Amino acid sequence: MKTYAELAPSPRTILTPGPVEVDPRVLRAMSMPILGQFDPEFTALMNDTMGMLRQLFRTNNEWAYPIDGTSRSGLEAALVSLIEPGDKVLVPIYGRFGYLLQEIAERCGAVLVTLEQQWGSVFDPEEVIAAIRKERPDIVAIVHGETSTGRIQPLADIGRACRELDVLLVVDAVATIGGVPVETDAWQLDVVVGGAQKCLSVPSGMAPITYNARAEQKLLKRKRVERGLRTTSTPSSTSDPLFAPIRSNYFDLSQLQDYWSPLRLNHHTEMTSMLYALREGVRIILAEGLEARFARHRLQEQALMAGLEAMGLSLYGDPASKLTVVTCVNIPPGVDGESVRDMLLGKFGIEIASSFGPLKGRIWRIGTMGYSCSTKNVLHFLGAFEAVLVRHGVPVQAGAGVQAALDVY
Amino acid sequence: MKTYAELAPSPRTILTPGPVEVDPRVLRAMSMPILGQFDPEFTALMNDTMGMLRQLFRTNNEWAYPIDGTSRSGLEAALVSLIEPGDKVLVPIYGRFGYLLQEIAERCGAVLVTLEQQWGSVFDPEEVIAAIRKERPDIVAIVHGETSTGRIQPLADIGRACRELDVLLVVDAVATIGGVPVETDAWQLDVVVGGAQKCLSVPSGMAPITYNARAEQKLLKRKRVERGLRTTSTPSSTSDPLFAPIRSNYFDLSQLQDYWSPLRLNHHTEMTSMLYALREGVRIILAEGLEARFARHRLQEQALMAGLEAMGLSLYGDPASKLTVVTCVNIPPGVDGESVRDMLLGKFGIEIASSFGPLKGRIWRIGTMGYSCSTKNVLHFLGAFEAVLVRHGVPVQAGAGVQAALDVY
Repeated sequence: MKTYAELAPSPRTILTPGPVEVDPRVLRAMSMPILGQFDPEFTALMNDTMGMLRQLFRTNNEWAYPIDGTSRSGLEAALVSLIEPGDKVLVPIYGRFGYLLQEIAERCGAVLVTLEQQWGSVFDPEEVIAAIRKERPDIVAIVHGETSTGRIQPLADIGRACRELDVLLVVDAVATIGGVPVETDAWQLDVVVGGAQKCLSVPSGMAPITYNARAEQKLLKRKRVERGLRTTSTPSSTSDPLFAPIRSNYFDLSQLQDYWSPLRLNHHTEMTSMLYALREGVRIILAEGLEARFARHRLQEQALMAGLEAMGLSLYGDPASKLTVVTCVNIPPGVDGESVRDMLLGKFGIEIASSFGPLKGRIWRIGTMGYSCSTKNVLHFLGAFEAVLVRHGVPVQAGAGVQAALDVY
Repeated sequence: MKTYAELAPSPRTILTPGPVEVDPRVLRAMSMPILGQFDPEFTALMNDTMGMLRQLFRTNNEWAYPIDGTSRSGLEAALVSLIEPGDKVLVPIYGRFGYLLQEIAERCGAVLVTLEQQWGSVFDPEEVIAAIRKERPDIVAIVHGETSTGRIQPLADIGRACRELDVLLVVDAVATIGGVPVETDAWQLDVVVGGAQKCLSVPSGMAPITYNARAEQKLLKRKRVERGLRTTSTPSSTSDPLFAPIRSNYFDLSQLQDYWSPLRLNHHTEMTSMLYALREGVRIILAEGLEARFARHRLQEQALMAGLEAMGLSLYGDPASKLTVVTCVNIPPGVDGESVRDMLLGKFGIEIASSFGPLKGRIWRIGTMGYSCSTKNVLHFLGAFEAVLVRHGVPVQAGAGVQAALDVY
């Protein structure tokens, strides 16, 4: 019978758009002994986490808590809880993760309307607003930061239009939360889903979500209390019979909010160690300060871009919509992008990303997120990248990249 | 603005039916630096985990991998992937978690047939088999170990009957895997879902699952490749148009198995630290040896029961169907069960569980699972329980419980 070796992961410099390096304080939090899910010490940690997430999302929403799953679990929880089969959902798509929203919404039984924008740019908000006025969807679902193309979509105007037209706006902020501003209340976003393993620098495993009273109102119309928990004081349903029940138990936000409320109505068994990690990760972020953190991400992006351009490389996509935390580089003609990535990982312990679909083999994607977003990492990468490109026959002036980045610092 | 204290969980003796104490080696594994999800070192760890899970489930199935969520995520993944809306699903219910299977199956669009057995006992397999012959369901979903009542349902005869009648059998082994025998192949179980935070002593956050070629055949008929990943070499669908597509993206086993296969078709971002924990937890279990582990759980159960009975307490439920790893105790008349639990936790740092629905306030539930299942814990608990019961006016002979347990050891 096969035997399995001791766990001993190699040290890595992770400069992908997620998962990224985890702060050692977060790793340490996960090594703490667990508490029972209804232990008052643990429910106090759950309440702490809700309070901190409100600050992170910049919202006064009552509901801000993690979904127990990877980032896309948060997207699915939002969509399956809000979409009744037959609801019209508008998805403006400008990269791979727009297709994911489309896919999830379709599986929830939505009638889909999509807008597509050339990859590498984003929508003029007026174009989206015109489509909302024309189609009058029940829900608009849109990506804030699209890691597949390294773009960011402005949302404030779209948020205002959705509020005026009484449309629910669901935002995928998986890549942006904690790295660039996400203004839930100021931009009038009804539901925002964040990711753990990107700018929060927490391991993949939880998806923080927030939603307002407009979204909650729809949930409550569809609510049913779980069988096996029903008593005379908690009847089976508060739902309006005109509304279809939610198609998932695991992702039912109306049940989850009862679990996260003082009611503590039993649902799943909260992921103890991941909750420790998320609480510690967000605590570190708030201690750094959101504005200081955003400034750090901008500085590292500037240094990285200066270094890459000094090496004679060109950046992919429309500069006006560049996402601070993901920098996409065109692979020079004749260069095998995967061979470059393999050598970076194998010899230098540095991981960068390839891309999806139409961009596969055409660009590299470099993430500067959270704990990975540091001067040490950017300089180490630029030096290593130069060496690897030279080995792949790309004419790069020795030292130019690192020197240009140092000039920025 | 509120400030948040350093994480400092109190040490606990956790004798609930989950989550239970985590082996320090598993906690240590979670504190290791992360690897990228497509780093060859990480995919090797994923493959290790699949190999170890096959041993744990005692199966030669190709597919054995974790679902990224809590235990009920594994149940929902199995059911939403296999149930087409309109499929007939038979759920024999003998406790709370049978209702959960019913609830999830209903939300998947199944036509439900349920059998109900008095709580505290289990089904005569012949009764279930007769219902299968009569109803001819597409799927039978049943709980193996019911923690709400502390019972275990024999499955071998039901497995044989389902195979003969070409019915898919889905088993909730969340509470039993790693604590008592679960014989996937020998009992002819088509899908088995385990839990992390019970007898595996891994923190909540992953649900190991295995399924055979019979289950896979149904998945493949419903398969669609995710939008945004489709290329000419991976077309959108291999599905039979007569079969309804799977209603979830996150829980789509046909996509998940592509992610866990050498194809590594991108889906979610695997939970790195939880995968480390699961791999280490199962590695420790296989090193102990499954038979030795089952014997340890039986021994501690015997000692615990002897101690409780020597204290004059009575056990709940039919002894013939008692689940080794959960012992239910009738709360003596006039005693406030929650006050006893609060004093155990507050003064002795010991957590035991209350119960659900009709048993709420009537029984305590004591788990002896995984790392929590130790002589030290059983003896500590019996001594503390005696002291707390005396303080609650229950006449208990001093020292009797601990001495009776020592006699068993």
